[in-house]
Amino acid sequence: MANHKLWGGRFEASLEDWVEEFGASIGFDYRLAPYDLQGSLAHVKMLGQTGILTQEEAKAIEEGLGTLLARYQAGTLAFDVGNEDIHMNIESLLTQEIGSVAGKLHTARSRNDQVATDMHLYLKDQLQQIGQKLWHLRQVLVTIAEEHVETIMPGYTHLQHAQPISLAHHLLAYYQMFTRDSQRFAFNMEHTDLSPLGAAALAGTTFPIDRELTANLMGFKGVYHNSLDAVSDRDFILEFLSNCSILIMHLSRLCEELIHWCSYEYGFVSLSDTFSTGSSIMPQKKNPDMAELIRGKSGRIYGHLMGLLTIMKSLPLAYNKDLQEDKEGMFDTVDTIKKSLDIMAGMLSTMTVHSDRMLASTQGDFSNATELADYLAKKGLPFREAHEIVGKLVLECSKSGFYLQDIPFSRYQKLSPLIEEDIYQVLQSHTAVQKRNSLGGTGFEQISLELERAKQDLGTL
Amino acid sequence: MANHKLWGGRFEASLEDWVEEFGASIGFDYRLAPYDLQGSLAHVKMLGQTGILTQEEAKAIEEGLGTLLARYQAGTLAFDVGNEDIHMNIESLLTQEIGSVAGKLHTARSRNDQVATDMHLYLKDQLQQIGQKLWHLRQVLVTIAEEHVETIMPGYTHLQHAQPISLAHHLLAYYQMFTRDSQRFAFNMEHTDLSPLGAAALAGTTFPIDRELTANLMGFKGVYHNSLDAVSDRDFILEFLSNCSILIMHLSRLCEELIHWCSYEYGFVSLSDTFSTGSSIMPQKKNPDMAELIRGKSGRIYGHLMGLLTIMKSLPLAYNKDLQEDKEGMFDTVDTIKKSLDIMAGMLSTMTVHSDRMLASTQGDFSNATELADYLAKKGLPFREAHEIVGKLVLECSKSGFYLQDIPFSRYQKLSPLIEEDIYQVLQSHTAVQKRNSLGGTGFEQISLELERAKQDLGTL
Amino acid sequence: MANHKLWGGRFEASLEDWVEEFGASIGFDYRLAPYDLQGSLAHVKMLGQTGILTQEEAKAIEEGLGTLLARYQAGTLAFDVGNEDIHMNIESLLTQEIGSVAGKLHTARSRNDQVATDMHLYLKDQLQQIGQKLWHLRQVLVTIAEEHVETIMPGYTHLQHAQPISLAHHLLAYYQMFTRDSQRFAFNMEHTDLSPLGAAALAGTTFPIDRELTANLMGFKGVYHNSLDAVSDRDFILEFLSNCSILIMHLSRLCEELIHWCSYEYGFVSLSDTFSTGSSIMPQKKNPDMAELIRGKSGRIYGHLMGLLTIMKSLPLAYNKDLQEDKEGMFDTVDTIKKSLDIMAGMLSTMTVHSDRMLASTQGDFSNATELADYLAKKGLPFREAHEIVGKLVLECSKSGFYLQDIPFSRYQKLSPLIEEDIYQVLQSHTAVQKRNSLGGTGFEQISLELERAKQDLGTL
Amino acid sequence: MANHKLWGGRFEASLEDWVEEFGASIGFDYRLAPYDLQGSLAHVKMLGQTGILTQEEAKAIEEGLGTLLARYQAGTLAFDVGNEDIHMNIESLLTQEIGSVAGKLHTARSRNDQVATDMHLYLKDQLQQIGQKLWHLRQVLVTIAEEHVETIMPGYTHLQHAQPISLAHHLLAYYQMFTRDSQRFAFNMEHTDLSPLGAAALAGTTFPIDRELTANLMGFKGVYHNSLDAVSDRDFILEFLSNCSILIMHLSRLCEELIHWCSYEYGFVSLSDTFSTGSSIMPQKKNPDMAELIRGKSGRIYGHLMGLLTIMKSLPLAYNKDLQEDKEGMFDTVDTIKKSLDIMAGMLSTMTVHSDRMLASTQGDFSNATELADYLAKKGLPFREAHEIVGKLVLECSKSGFYLQDIPFSRYQKLSPLIEEDIYQVLQSHTAVQKRNSLGGTGFEQISLELERAKQDLGTL
Repeated sequence: MANHKLWGGRFEASLEDWVEEFGASIGFDYRLAPYDLQGSLAHVKMLGQTGILTQEEAKAIEEGLGTLLARYQAGTLAFDVGNEDIHMNIESLLTQEIGSVAGKLHTARSRNDQVATDMHLYLKDQLQQIGQKLWHLRQVLVTIAEEHVETIMPGYTHLQHAQPISLAHHLLAYYQMFTRDSQRFAFNMEHTDLSPLGAAALAGTTFPIDRELTANLMGFKGVYHNSLDAVSDRDFILEFLSNCSILIMHLSRLCEELIHWCSYEYGFVSLSDTFSTGSSIMPQKKNPDMAELIRGKSGRIYGHLMGLLTIMKSLPLAYNKDLQEDKEGMFDTVDTIKKSLDIMAGMLSTMTVHSDRMLASTQGDFSNATELADYLAKKGLPFREAHEIVGKLVLECSKSGFYLQDIPFSRYQKLSPLIEEDIYQVLQSHTAVQKRNSLGGTGFEQISLELERAKQDLGTL
Repeated sequence: MANHKLWGGRFEASLEDWVEEFGASIGFDYRLAPYDLQGSLAHVKMLGQTGILTQEEAKAIEEGLGTLLARYQAGTLAFDVGNEDIHMNIESLLTQEIGSVAGKLHTARSRNDQVATDMHLYLKDQLQQIGQKLWHLRQVLVTIAEEHVETIMPGYTHLQHAQPISLAHHLLAYYQMFTRDSQRFAFNMEHTDLSPLGAAALAGTTFPIDRELTANLMGFKGVYHNSLDAVSDRDFILEFLSNCSILIMHLSRLCEELIHWCSYEYGFVSLSDTFSTGSSIMPQKKNPDMAELIRGKSGRIYGHLMGLLTIMKSLPLAYNKDLQEDKEGMFDTVDTIKKSLDIMAGMLSTMTVHSDRMLASTQGDFSNATELADYLAKKGLPFREAHEIVGKLVLECSKSGFYLQDIPFSRYQKLSPLIEEDIYQVLQSHTAVQKRNSLGGTGFEQISLELERAKQDLGTL
Repeated sequence: MANHKLWGGRFEASLEDWVEEFGASIGFDYRLAPYDLQGSLAHVKMLGQTGILTQEEAKAIEEGLGTLLARYQAGTLAFDVGNEDIHMNIESLLTQEIGSVAGKLHTARSRNDQVATDMHLYLKDQLQQIGQKLWHLRQVLVTIAEEHVETIMPGYTHLQHAQPISLAHHLLAYYQMFTRDSQRFAFNMEHTDLSPLGAAALAGTTFPIDRELTANLMGFKGVYHNSLDAVSDRDFILEFLSNCSILIMHLSRLCEELIHWCSYEYGFVSLSDTFSTGSSIMPQKKNPDMAELIRGKSGRIYGHLMGLLTIMKSLPLAYNKDLQEDKEGMFDTVDTIKKSLDIMAGMLSTMTVHSDRMLASTQGDFSNATELADYLAKKGLPFREAHEIVGKLVLECSKSGFYLQDIPFSRYQKLSPLIEEDIYQVLQSHTAVQKRNSLGGTGFEQISLELERAKQDLGTL
Repeated sequence: MANHKLWGGRFEASLEDWVEEFGASIGFDYRLAPYDLQGSLAHVKMLGQTGILTQEEAKAIEEGLGTLLARYQAGTLAFDVGNEDIHMNIESLLTQEIGSVAGKLHTARSRNDQVATDMHLYLKDQLQQIGQKLWHLRQVLVTIAEEHVETIMPGYTHLQHAQPISLAHHLLAYYQMFTRDSQRFAFNMEHTDLSPLGAAALAGTTFPIDRELTANLMGFKGVYHNSLDAVSDRDFILEFLSNCSILIMHLSRLCEELIHWCSYEYGFVSLSDTFSTGSSIMPQKKNPDMAELIRGKSGRIYGHLMGLLTIMKSLPLAYNKDLQEDKEGMFDTVDTIKKSLDIMAGMLSTMTVHSDRMLASTQGDFSNATELADYLAKKGLPFREAHEIVGKLVLECSKSGFYLQDIPFSRYQKLSPLIEEDIYQVLQSHTAVQKRNSLGGTGFEQISLELERAKQDLGTL
C-alpha cells in the first residue's frame, strides 16, 4: 500500500490502522470542510497574484477547489479516515480532481496555520448565528414582559417570598443577562475575526506571500502579527467556551424557575404539551423535560471549558498535537447552545401564565412586611427600629394565623401612633409593586422605561 | 400520525420534530441496546416465574427479545429518533415482532429503573475490559523494566538532574500508579455491580416482583435497597469518571516524559515510526503525536467529570431529565481510556531506549553531589555542614568547568581531611544507584524485589 | 543577614522578601506541625536504633522534638515566613532548642519524603474524623426516619408529583448515599495509610535506614515500594477531593430539598431559628441560609478537585514545586466538609416536620394515577392500554377540576368493567404507599427492614 | 446576651456560635471594608440631598463614616465574628461612634445591593492594578526582545526542532497573549463599572432615592437597570475568573518553557539566584521554583472559575446565600494573579540568556530541512515532491551521522540538478530566520515592525 501521508518521506514504517484512527481527526473535523475550502481558495488566489504560482497553476487549483465546494454543497464529498484530517482529505480529493498540480496548493502554508484559519472562519460564522438566536430570545422575553407589566407575583430571595414584584420585571432580569451574553459574544468576535493564514508551520515563510490579501479574501478584519502566536493561540475558543458557560448558567437559572413554576406547589405557569413529556409508568405526569435538559446541559459546557483550559495548561510553543483536542468540545458547545436557545424561546413563547395563582400567592404571605417597615421609617422611625417592630408583629401573626392586611386597625394603633388608615392600601401587593419606582425598580413606570430601552436596543421600537 | 409515545394518553399536542430531537437520546444510547435487551430478558423471565404474566405471555416476549438480540448481533436492528430512546425503540421493535403482548413487558418497571439497569450492566462490562487493558500495560512496564535494571539515567526533581537512578525504577513508579488505578476500578465495581431493576419509577411497585431473581439472572452481585436511591444514584459513574481522571493524569505524566525523552535535547529514546507522525511542511519532523494526544485527552476526561458533578449538583430526588446527560461523557471516557491504554502499551513496547545517552547524561552533571555530602555525613560531619561544603564546591566547579569526578585529590584533601581516595568510586553514577538500597530505593537489589512483587501481583511469576 | 536556608551553599544572592513570600508555604502548612513532629520523632528513633546516629545524638534530638511538641500543644510555637515552610521552621526551632546536633535529624531524608509523610499522617487523621461525622449524620437520618415511617408525602420525579411515598423512605435514600460516601473514605484510607518516609529526595538513600520501623512508629499499615512514586504521588489526595465532591453533591441535593420544603409553596418543614437567618430589610424573612451555604460550598470543593487535577496534569517525575499547591485546597476541603456535616446533622435534628401539609399535598393531586393503571393491569389489561386510558381520564379531570378519588363510581364503570368499588380504597395515598412493598420499595414493611439493616450497619441495633 | 443581629425581630432563638461562624463572612469580607465605607458615604450623601434623611442626620452619619474610614486606614478598626459580615460590623461600629442615628443609614438599601456594590468597587480597583502589572510585564518582554532580535534559537513544534527562529520573536508571541489578556480585562471593566446600589433587597425601593447620584459619587460609569439582576448578577466576577484562567494559562506556558530552558538538557538560560531555590538534600540543585509555582497556580485559578460556575448553576432569582461563596475565590485569584505577574516580570528581567547554546542547538539538527524543500519548490518542483526528497535525505543523514550543511556538493547534485552552490548559505540558521520575512514571520525586519507596534501600544515609543 502506498503511503498517502503528506509527510511520509522520512518514515520507514506506515501506521497501523488502529493507531492511525486514534490520531485521525476526520471523524469530527469534516465539519470544517467548507471553511477549509474557503481558506484554500483565498490562499491559491494569493499564490497566483503574487506570482508564487503561475496564473495557469493557480487557475487550475482554483477551479478544482470550486468543483470540490460544489460537490460538498451537493453532499457528494466522501472523506477517508486513512487521510487523517480534513486538510489531507481535501488535498487528496483535489489531486484526484486535477492531478499533481494540486501539490502546489500547499506552498507557503502548513496544516498548523491552515487549521487555525478554518477554526477562525468556523467560529466567526457561528458567533453570528448565536448572536441572532440570542436576539430572538431577548425579543421573546420583551414581548412576554409587555403583556405582564401588571402581573403581580412574589419576588423571592432565599426562595422565600420577599416582596411582590411584576412578572415583567422578573423576565426583564433575564433580558439583562442575555444582553450581556450578546455583548460578550460581540467582544469574542474581536479575537476571532483575525487571519492566521501565512504563519505557516510556526515561523512564517520565505515565500513572498500577501497575508492581508488572503485575510481580505476570507473577509477577516485583520491578521495575527506573530506567527508563533497565530498557530498556537486558542484564546478565541476559550473566550467562546467561557461565554457559553455563562450563557448556559443563565439558561439553567431560568429553567430552574420554570421547573418550579410549573410544579404542583407553584402552579404559576403551564408549559405547552409540545415542550413537555410524560412518563412510561405514571399516566398523569407532564414533565418539563426540555427545561431540565437545558439545565443539565450546563454540565457539558462547563466540562468543555475545563477541558480546553486543561489542554492548554503548560503547553510549550508552538503547535502541539494536544491542540487537536480543541475541536469536539467547541463543536458540541455550538450545537448545544444553538439548540438550547431555540428551545428556550419556543418554551417561553408557548407557555401559559396563571396570573391569578401568582397574585393569590402574594396575598397569603408576609411579603408586604417591608411596606409596613418603610411606612414607619418614612414617618420618622429609624429604619432599624421599624424593622424590629414589624419582625415581632410577623412572628405574632404567624402564630395566630393572621396576615398583615387582616389585622384590625386598633391593633395597629397600639403598635404605633404613626400608623393611619391608609396602611391597608399600602399593604396591597399591587400598590407595593407600583410604588417601588426607584430607577430599575419593579414599579410599573420603571418597567415601561426598561421595555422601551430594550426595544431600542433590539431595534424593534 | 399516531402518537407512538409510551406516555401519550394525557397529551393533546404531539412534539414538533426539532423539539423531539432535542429530547431524544437514541442518537447515543443505542449503545445500550444489548444491555437493555439483557435486562428485559431477565425482567420477563421473572414476570413469568412470579405469575405476574402468564407462562405464554412471558414466553412470547422472551422469544421476541431473543430475536431482537440476534438481529442486534447481526447488525440489522435499526433505531428511530421518533422513538426517543433505546427503551422505547426496543419496545416498538418488539411490538412489530410479536404484537400487542409486547405491551406487557413494561409491567412493574419504569424507564427510570430500566435505564439505571442498562448503565450498571454497561459499566460493569467496561470496567472488566479496562481492568484487562491496565493489566496489559502494567505487564509491558514490568517487561521493559526487567531489561533495564542497570540502565542508568538522571533522576529529576524540578526537571533538574537530582540523582542518578535506574530506568527500571523510573518505569516501576508508573507501574505503581497503574496498580492503584486498577485497585480503584476494582472498588468502583462494588457500587456498579448492583441491580436497580424493580425500583420502578421511584417508589417500588405493588406487583409481587422478585428483584433478587432478576439481579441473579443479570449476574449482579446485589440489589439497591432504596428505590429512590436506585433511580437517582449516579455515584458509580462519578467514581468511574474520577478514577479515569486520575488514570489519564498518570498517562499524561508518562506522555510528558516520553515527549521530553524523544526530543533533540534529551535523545533518550526513539519512538517507533508507527507511533510517530511527520509534518506537511518540515520534512525532517518525527513527532510524538500519540503521546501528545493522550496528554491532551486529559482535558476531555477532566471535563466529563466536572460535567457530571455539575449536572448532579442540587438535583432534588428522584429522577430528573438532567440525568440523561450522564451518558455521552461516560461513553466518551470509556472509549478514550481504552484506546489510550492500548496506544500507550504499543508505544512503550516498540520504543528504542538509548542507554548510552542516558548514562552519558549522568556523567556530565552534578547529580553525584549528594554522594559526596552523604560520604561526609557518614564520616561524622553533621549533614547540614556537609551540604553547605558541597554546595560551595559545586558553585566553584560550575564556574571553572569541572565536574566532581574530575577534581584532583589534593583539592579534596584541602576540602576535608575526611575524604579518601575511594571518593572517586563513590562518585560514579553506577555506584550511586547501586548503593541507594533502602527499601523502595533505586538500588538494583531493591528493583529486583520490586519486579518480583510486581510479577506476583500480575500473576506472571 | 545570614542566609538561613537549608539549601544555601550553592547560592550567591539571597531571596528578596516578596519573592521569598511567594515561594513560602508556612502561611498554610503550619497546620502540619504536629504531624511533622510526629514524623521526625519516628525518624530520629530509627536513626538511633540503626546506629546511623549515636544514641546520644538521637536522644538529644528526640528530647528537643518532644519539647517542641509540648510547646506546640501549649500554643507557644511561633513560625517565621523567612524559614519558608513547616519543615525548615521546625528544624530552625530545634536548633535553637538543642544546638547544632539538630542538623543531624535531616540525615537520610529529604523535604520531599518529609512533606509527603506529613500529608499522609494529616489526611489519615482527618479521614477518621470525617468518618465519625458521617456516621453521626447517618444516625440522625435513621432516627428521624424511624419517627416518620407512616408520614406520607408526595414522591417527585421531574419535580412533579409522581407517587406518594413515606418520608422515612425519602430520608433513607440519603442514608444510602452517605453510606456509600463512608465506604469511599474507607477505601481512601488504603492509599493514605502508607509511609513514604525514607524515599528521601527521590531515589532512596545509601544510609541503612529501616523504613518499616518508622512506618510502625507512625502507625502506618504499610510503606510505599517505589521511592519516585512515594515523593510524587498525590493520588490519595485526589481520591479524597473526589470523594468529598461526591459527598458535597449529596449534601447539595438534600439542601435543595430542604430549601424547597421550608418555602411558602411547600410548607413541609420549618427549620429551627438556630439554623435560619433574617433579612436586614424585610422583617418577615426567615431564610434557610445554612442549607444554601452548604449547597453553595459544592463550588469550592469541585474547584479544589479540578485544581489538583490541573496541577498534576503532565508533571514529570519526581517532585516538582507545583506540588506545594496541593495543600490549601485539601485543608479547605477538610474544614468545609467537617463543618457541613455538623451543620447538616444539626439542621435535620432540629427541624419540625409538618406531616399534615405533606399528606394534604398527596390528596389534591394525581399522584395516585399509577394505582389506577396498575389496578387495571392486574385485572388483565395490557399495561400500555391501562396507561393510555388513565392518562385520558387525568386530562379530563384536570379540565373539570376533579381528582381521581372524587369521580363517581358510575363514571368508573363506564371507563372499564374491570373497575369495582374497592377502587376508592386503592386510590388512598396511604394504601398506595403501603402496597408498594417490593424489595427496597416505599411500603412500610420494606422501610422497617431497611431501618433494621441501617441500624445493624451503624452498630446501633 | 442581646441579639445584635440586624434582622432579629422575627426570631426567638439566637444562633449558636459554631453555626454563626459557619454563616459568617467577616473572616474574609473584611477586605471590603474601604469599599463598603465608600459606598455608605455615597449612599448617605444621597439620602441627605434627596431629603430622605434630614441634613443633620446625613451629616452625623457622614462624619461617623469618615471617622471609621480614618480608623480603617490607620489600621485600628477591629471586626467581630458575632456581627456576621462586613456590613453589620461597620453598622455596629458606626452605632458605637454616633449612636442610634446610625440606624438610618440602612434606609432604602439592603445588604443585597450593598454587597454587590462593594464587589463592583473592589473589582474595579483590582482590574486597574492588574492592568498596570500586565503593562509592566509586556514592557519587560519588549525590552528583552529588543536585545535579542538576532539571537537564533530552535523553534519547536511537538517539542521537536522545527525551524530556527529569533528569541525576540518567541518572546513577542507571549507579548501578544498578554496584550489580549489586557483587552479582556478592559472589556471586563464594562460590566464591572456599574452601580447596583439602590436595587435594595431585590425590587427597588419606595423611597425617592437618586441612583445616578450615588453612582457618580462612587465614580461608576453607569447603573444596573433591573433591580433583580443587580443583586443576583455575578457575571462580572465570572468574566474576571475566566480572564484570569486564560492569563494564568499563558503564564503556565511561559513557565514551562523557562523550566525547560534552564534544564541541564537545554541550558538556554540561567535564572537569577533570587528566583531560584535549592534542595535540602542535594547540594548542587538550583531549582526554578518560582516558575513551577506559577505553573501550578493555574490549578487554583481554574478551580475558582469552576467553583463559581458551579455555585451559580440553576440558582433561582434573586439573592441566595450561596452567592456569599463568590468572594474567597475572587480574592485569592486577585492575589495570585498580581503576585504571579510581579514574579514573572522579575524572573524574566533577571535571567541570563545563553545565546551561544541556543545558536549551537540550531546547528546540530535538521531544522533547516524546510529551507531545502522551499529552495527546490521555488525552483519549480511541486512542494509535495520536494518534501518527499528532503524527507528521504534526512533519514539517510540521520543514519550516517551527517547534517544537511555537511553533505558534499556532489551528493546534492545527484539529488537534484536544481541545487546550486548557494545551498550552503541557504542552510545557515541565521539566513533561514532572516528570510522568513512574511508578515508576522520571524524575519528580523518583521520583528522590528512588531517591536515598533508593541511600543506604540505600550506608549513607550
